[in-house]
Amino acid sequence: MKELKDRILNEGKVLPGDIIKLDGFLNHKVDCQFMQRIADEFATIFDIESVDILLTAEASGIALTAVCAAKWGKPMIYAKKAKSDNIEGGLYQSEIYSYTYKKHVTQIVSKEWLKAGQRVLILDDFMANGEAVRGLTDLVAQAGADLEGIGIAVEKGFQGGGARLRDAGFNYHALAVIEKAAPGHIEFREE
Amino acid sequence: MKELKDRILNEGKVLPGDIIKLDGFLNHKVDCQFMQRIADEFATIFDIESVDILLTAEASGIALTAVCAAKWGKPMIYAKKAKSDNIEGGLYQSEIYSYTYKKHVTQIVSKEWLKAGQRVLILDDFMANGEAVRGLTDLVAQAGADLEGIGIAVEKGFQGGGARLRDAGFNYHALAVIEKAAPGHIEFREE
Repeated sequence: MKELKDRILNEGKVLPGDIIKLDGFLNHKVDCQFMQRIADEFATIFDIESVDILLTAEASGIALTAVCAAKWGKPMIYAKKAKSDNIEGGLYQSEIYSYTYKKHVTQIVSKEWLKAGQRVLILDDFMANGEAVRGLTDLVAQAGADLEGIGIAVEKGFQGGGARLRDAGFNYHALAVIEKAAPGHIEFREE
Repeated sequence: MKELKDRILNEGKVLPGDIIKLDGFLNHKVDCQFMQRIADEFATIFDIESVDILLTAEASGIALTAVCAAKWGKPMIYAKKAKSDNIEGGLYQSEIYSYTYKKHVTQIVSKEWLKAGQRVLILDDFMANGEAVRGLTDLVAQAGADLEGIGIAVEKGFQGGGARLRDAGFNYHALAVIEKAAPGHIEFREE
């Protein structure tokens, strides 16, 4: 997606440790009208009509997914990080490793809202190692729901998460795949 | 807001410990088209034209605020819970007590995105003790930004957060104020 790549080049910052900061429009300050155009781009890739519910992970995927959900008229659900005691009863749980927080995190979704037979589209703003998305696919499988696809705005292509999802045969698409990143230099994968 | 109160009555659950669960449409599974109607309601209360940026707190405020931001054509920013090492440089920080997680939490916002003179509207989906919102008002003050108002979808009126914000003279509005809650019974404050 050209506009996304342009904004990554113009506004992104690469920090030591391969950290790519897009916090001026994607995941701290968020340009939600731009998120609407990202929704339009996803709609050219996925069969949105056939999707029952959008699934993302707390916290940074929520803004993009909420804008998509409003635009497409679909409900969304976000997997929470465990510890809140406000989710009663049955839960699907998946264990992931958060490289951001350097610890294991448990993602939870209420069995009340993710159900067998639902057609699920997973969305997230950013993917590096792909742990959050792997956890979400696991939640979908536990629920017996059908995974229609996985849409990611920005993939760090050199950290393996996208490759694993493609190899696993998922209907996986990222709108911008960063192949190389160094301070002052970002290179995208050719499409 | 009548539709909001109706949904609270029809879909909300009160659990022991005064926990009011609205996780089927507000803060786990989210009805983002309904969030658009909440945005319309906020727009009758606040002077949205004069607002520069929307501010909310991770994580449950993000979906509602993102939908408002997309609808109104305004940027949004969400205060993060500290610990991510992906936010470099200058930060505004506020310490709050999370009753949900029963521990102190540090909210952070990058100085890069919240600036002196900006007109800020704080939005959140839910308020009980008001600690998250108190932290956000503190971040706005630290930045030297101007707080235009505080909009909350659902206030637990019996836990004091709203009263403190009204008493402090903020331009504070909640679309539904729950006065009493017990299993099977929810009562709203008269307007």
